[in-house]
Amino acid sequence: MKTMTSTKNGSRGTRLFLTGTFLLVSLLTAYPQWRRPVISPEVQDDCSVIFRLYAPDAGSVKITGNWMPGWGHSVELARNDTGLYTIQTDPLPSEMYTYVFLVDGVRTIDPGNVQIVRDGVRNESMFIVPGGQGDLYQVHDIPHGAVTKIWYDSPTLGMQRRMYIYTPPGYHSGTDSYPVLYLLHGAGGDEDAWTTLGRTNYILDNLIAQGKARPMMVVMTNGVPTSAAAPTDRPVDLEKTGIESGGPGGMVSGKFEESLVKDVIPFVESHFRVKTGPMSRAIAGLSMGGYHTQVITNKYPGMFKYIGVMSMGLYGDNRFGNYSREEHEKQIRALIASKPELYWIGVGKEDFLYESVTNLRKFYDEMGLNYIYRETSGGHTWTNWRIYLSELAPLLFR
Amino acid sequence: MKTMTSTKNGSRGTRLFLTGTFLLVSLLTAYPQWRRPVISPEVQDDCSVIFRLYAPDAGSVKITGNWMPGWGHSVELARNDTGLYTIQTDPLPSEMYTYVFLVDGVRTIDPGNVQIVRDGVRNESMFIVPGGQGDLYQVHDIPHGAVTKIWYDSPTLGMQRRMYIYTPPGYHSGTDSYPVLYLLHGAGGDEDAWTTLGRTNYILDNLIAQGKARPMMVVMTNGVPTSAAAPTDRPVDLEKTGIESGGPGGMVSGKFEESLVKDVIPFVESHFRVKTGPMSRAIAGLSMGGYHTQVITNKYPGMFKYIGVMSMGLYGDNRFGNYSREEHEKQIRALIASKPELYWIGVGKEDFLYESVTNLRKFYDEMGLNYIYRETSGGHTWTNWRIYLSELAPLLFR
Repeated sequence: MKTMTSTKNGSRGTRLFLTGTFLLVSLLTAYPQWRRPVISPEVQDDCSVIFRLYAPDAGSVKITGNWMPGWGHSVELARNDTGLYTIQTDPLPSEMYTYVFLVDGVRTIDPGNVQIVRDGVRNESMFIVPGGQGDLYQVHDIPHGAVTKIWYDSPTLGMQRRMYIYTPPGYHSGTDSYPVLYLLHGAGGDEDAWTTLGRTNYILDNLIAQGKARPMMVVMTNGVPTSAAAPTDRPVDLEKTGIESGGPGGMVSGKFEESLVKDVIPFVESHFRVKTGPMSRAIAGLSMGGYHTQVITNKYPGMFKYIGVMSMGLYGDNRFGNYSREEHEKQIRALIASKPELYWIGVGKEDFLYESVTNLRKFYDEMGLNYIYRETSGGHTWTNWRIYLSELAPLLFR
Repeated sequence: MKTMTSTKNGSRGTRLFLTGTFLLVSLLTAYPQWRRPVISPEVQDDCSVIFRLYAPDAGSVKITGNWMPGWGHSVELARNDTGLYTIQTDPLPSEMYTYVFLVDGVRTIDPGNVQIVRDGVRNESMFIVPGGQGDLYQVHDIPHGAVTKIWYDSPTLGMQRRMYIYTPPGYHSGTDSYPVLYLLHGAGGDEDAWTTLGRTNYILDNLIAQGKARPMMVVMTNGVPTSAAAPTDRPVDLEKTGIESGGPGGMVSGKFEESLVKDVIPFVESHFRVKTGPMSRAIAGLSMGGYHTQVITNKYPGMFKYIGVMSMGLYGDNRFGNYSREEHEKQIRALIASKPELYWIGVGKEDFLYESVTNLRKFYDEMGLNYIYRETSGGHTWTNWRIYLSELAPLLFR
């Protein structure tokens, strides 16, 4: 009612105020994106989820989501006489889920759902079922850290590259220094993956607010040495020079691992308020990032006192090995001698790399390297990697 | 060829290396998101654009994009005998464009295009036609600033809220302080809009690299006083308390304007290396953000020496006025007395608010407030707002 007091003509001011309000409402509703024809998804009290799509001209609408068994599984939605397609799931465990509709076979996000996550080059709709693990992935009214998208020079790879840096609550208002977790993505991912699919910043916010994790920084790099940044943010001039043409082979060339040690860590330790030294450095990664984590910690024993390997076993005689058993044994002996504070291994029972992790554990048992092993249900999925981060982070820097 | 030298068994090491490479490639291609069935969109040398969608089971595929005349305009794609739908546009001016397919009437992003922008609650596919204005919106291999998503306390609005802060190249490696542009979004937007639809960080990177704009910080807040953050990042506990229920009316309540002055500016000036004082402060906004800009600069004359109003005229007797002509005249006299360095006004000839800007200019002419006026073709669009930012930024802090 500011207008009532700030104008000489209260009633006129009020009328104009209400008119202004009315017209801004009109302005809002003038835009198609402001009409949400249906509510979708809608999580019910029993944690079942209703999906709705208005598609009167479609011949068939299916949905495929990561709560369904296996790749490529989909279910038909039921159509009513207005052309509204609907389906209700069974009650779902509290988690973060991704899905798309198949409209006459075409993959599409849910137009009723603003939440999108990008998995590689594919965008999917997202929702969270609260009440359990999913609460750890939601945004709560608690102190939040910041996420900075920043570019750095990588002489090792001959280009500027982008990374994401999570700074904990208080970083920008205080003077403390923090330990750093270097968190690596998998093949097909990029520097964006751990904050979108991985919910890393909100997981850390929640764990720190609950007193379960020490305040820490998290550095999320791009693990593809031929890419300057995610496909959404690649410099066009670099693409034109063909620097993108390295292909997936670059992922096991050892160049990313070298750039992390020679370029990334020095940049982070000289540009942010971080505690330096092995006791304040952790490294963890999933799939290809687990491979990178092992290559780095094997080659640079003692550089990281906290090590986490998710869903990947690098093992001298196994199919992912790129050097000999003898070399591997030599490296692990040096790693053991460096006395790591934590070596954490996690994998899902149905992971297609489960056997590689089993072989890795056998090898570490023979070598006498102590580790914590976490076996979950499920496979090579972000559901597992979010769980692994939420269980690994509390063990770091203790 | 590290494996050749680092192993005692070169040939075996090499074989394992190649096997590892092969299997990581398999790992990549094992995921559906790694198969891009068709290339879409494809910008041709003549700047026409080909769109492709494989939809053998669809009855009809249309496309609607912002290069077409007016809302709701769409064009049919042609189907070949394999079910591939294709269309080629006329040559398009160099710009950033957004579009969606209509698959049997259902709005869907282009599954072949990883580039997505969110406009309010709607996600759309995006592409850039290079060779002119569009180059200013592309990522080039030049020094990049950083974008930080950070939360701050707003006592005025009684909640933590999120803002985006662009820091120019060199901020994190140097000790300089920078002037600040406070850049406000429109009704339906949020703190994400100016970096996604607005390409603000890349526009500034490019203008700074070309020596056309002074290095500056850009603070992008959320202009809806009842929202803590964008719909993708709203604290669920706040939604449960009904703090989201303020509705669009909150947008003209004057509360956001108050929070910018009392909460946002003090936070920015105490948490970042910024030059303080009116000569180092600029404020600009589009549509509702232009309304907010006028309310703030009218109420707090002299706080900002650089002012930009895009596509909005607040005028005592006009439909968006929320106070009397007398009050407005008093404010503008005080604003003139504060001697602003720049008052910039931009609007499109076809903007539905064109008349409100015409009235504002008449009013300023009568009052004797000097301003720079930029009239473009087109309407109330991001195409215009990107152009306005790219022309306004070089005029700031001179």
